[in-house]
Amino acid sequence: MTLPRAVRLVEVGPRDGLQNEASPISVVDKVRLVDELSACGFSYIEAGSFVSPKWVPQMAGSAEVFAGINRHPGVTYAALTPNLQGAEAALAAGVGEVAVFAAASETFSQRNINCSIGQSLERFAPVMAAARVAGVPVRGYISCVLGCPYEGAIAPAQVAAVAVELHAMGCREISLGDTIGVGTPGATRTLFDTVAAVVPRDQLAGHFHDTYGQALANLYAALLEGISVFDSSVAGLGGCPYARGASGNVASEDVLYLLQGLGIDTGVNLDAVVGVGQWISGRLGRANGSRVALARTCA
Amino acid sequence: MTLPRAVRLVEVGPRDGLQNEASPISVVDKVRLVDELSACGFSYIEAGSFVSPKWVPQMAGSAEVFAGINRHPGVTYAALTPNLQGAEAALAAGVGEVAVFAAASETFSQRNINCSIGQSLERFAPVMAAARVAGVPVRGYISCVLGCPYEGAIAPAQVAAVAVELHAMGCREISLGDTIGVGTPGATRTLFDTVAAVVPRDQLAGHFHDTYGQALANLYAALLEGISVFDSSVAGLGGCPYARGASGNVASEDVLYLLQGLGIDTGVNLDAVVGVGQWISGRLGRANGSRVALARTCA
Repeated sequence: MTLPRAVRLVEVGPRDGLQNEASPISVVDKVRLVDELSACGFSYIEAGSFVSPKWVPQMAGSAEVFAGINRHPGVTYAALTPNLQGAEAALAAGVGEVAVFAAASETFSQRNINCSIGQSLERFAPVMAAARVAGVPVRGYISCVLGCPYEGAIAPAQVAAVAVELHAMGCREISLGDTIGVGTPGATRTLFDTVAAVVPRDQLAGHFHDTYGQALANLYAALLEGISVFDSSVAGLGGCPYARGASGNVASEDVLYLLQGLGIDTGVNLDAVVGVGQWISGRLGRANGSRVALARTCA
Repeated sequence: MTLPRAVRLVEVGPRDGLQNEASPISVVDKVRLVDELSACGFSYIEAGSFVSPKWVPQMAGSAEVFAGINRHPGVTYAALTPNLQGAEAALAAGVGEVAVFAAASETFSQRNINCSIGQSLERFAPVMAAARVAGVPVRGYISCVLGCPYEGAIAPAQVAAVAVELHAMGCREISLGDTIGVGTPGATRTLFDTVAAVVPRDQLAGHFHDTYGQALANLYAALLEGISVFDSSVAGLGGCPYARGASGNVASEDVLYLLQGLGIDTGVNLDAVVGVGQWISGRLGRANGSRVALARTCA
């Protein structure tokens, strides 16, 4: 067993987190959230999404967020861009990286973005082209990699097939998401083992949800497979749209605690993240979803 | 990596769980809890504690609980017995196994049970003798194996030293408890590796708390070390006395979900446990501490 010596965390709270929160939040608070996360030492922050506010009201004002934040040197500020229109707006806002989003489940793709997996990949081609022209890298997400709310189990080969396509299209990194948190460590290892056979291991990331309490066990399993990039969300912002009231994104604080315990460097200050998580949880009027934060504030 | 093919779960909800709950609970409900857990398929249930009700009011009436339960064939009903008086009462109540409780931390031992580790072990000698005469096996607990609220880090060798003594005194099995939930997977592996060098691996159990969200990751790490007995608590009953409001015992439901996903047999019906956990949580007026239960009831 050789674990990575360093891990890069992709802080997704301001995007994947906030977009699933019920309480509205102002641009001013979004800017403050991103700025405070920068100060914690995160080197990659997903700061917004250039989608129609009709579909995702929480992501309205992403251009203003990008205009308002204090860009720290060495930090990548990324945004989700579902189509060319979104990509153009994101590039105009000066994003450091754009992200595209595909599913490993055909039914999920149809229900979530109204098109087949193949059609979604076609839709990304002009996004990739626009990003290439602007000299901005692209990150790919694949959802439902360990299970789908409609189809149930998803074959690792199916995930690998989508990952290969995203990689061939030019995605710099591909994040494999357990969108509904149903995975367990053995399945996680098989998944990364299968996908790493066709996409370089150091271009893969793990994105775990804690809906069934398995996120950190799965993350440890992925570390054992040599994966060294993980997505997480401060205070566990986000929740699970398929089980309202249940947990969603794994909390950055809990991931940081695990990695610190394993002696793996992240460059992120856990105490500072706990502070930011407490602030944003209060602002949203929700309980802090991080167990580390809860333990520290109860103690 | 070869994981155990089967795991035995020690359900500690009725003892370690309830004794840390704030709401009072009647003997009738305790009996029902134990009976329903028996029906779930658990083969080992810690059903009470023979301690002074002055010290642990929630454990009053353990003799009545043992008199009232329906004993399923093949199920061990155990009780905690801190001293000879408790052991005699437990044996008179017809317990299937008694348990003694030592600490790996000298300061914790002093503060928790008012004596040194050495004195606590001496106190167990007559308990062991009485149990031997009665033909009842003894289980040993060691607390603070991955950290102490007073001393901080605890050396694995210190845990091994206590484990060796309990084993030499005749303990059939020794449960290593991360009492304050501070451990992470690497430390867990080192701990079990160290202790298994001096006590047979198949006589060791893992007892993890989820205070910092690490319980299942640690449990997976222990499985990778070949440990095949784990303590858990239905609905995560118990909480953490060192961080009121934070999580304590890992929820049996979440452990079962992990083990099912790994294809490891337990003989326990997860759906049934979710039902019992919902009932007892309602009875205690507390939120269900199992993420699996929360996901299933929110979905």
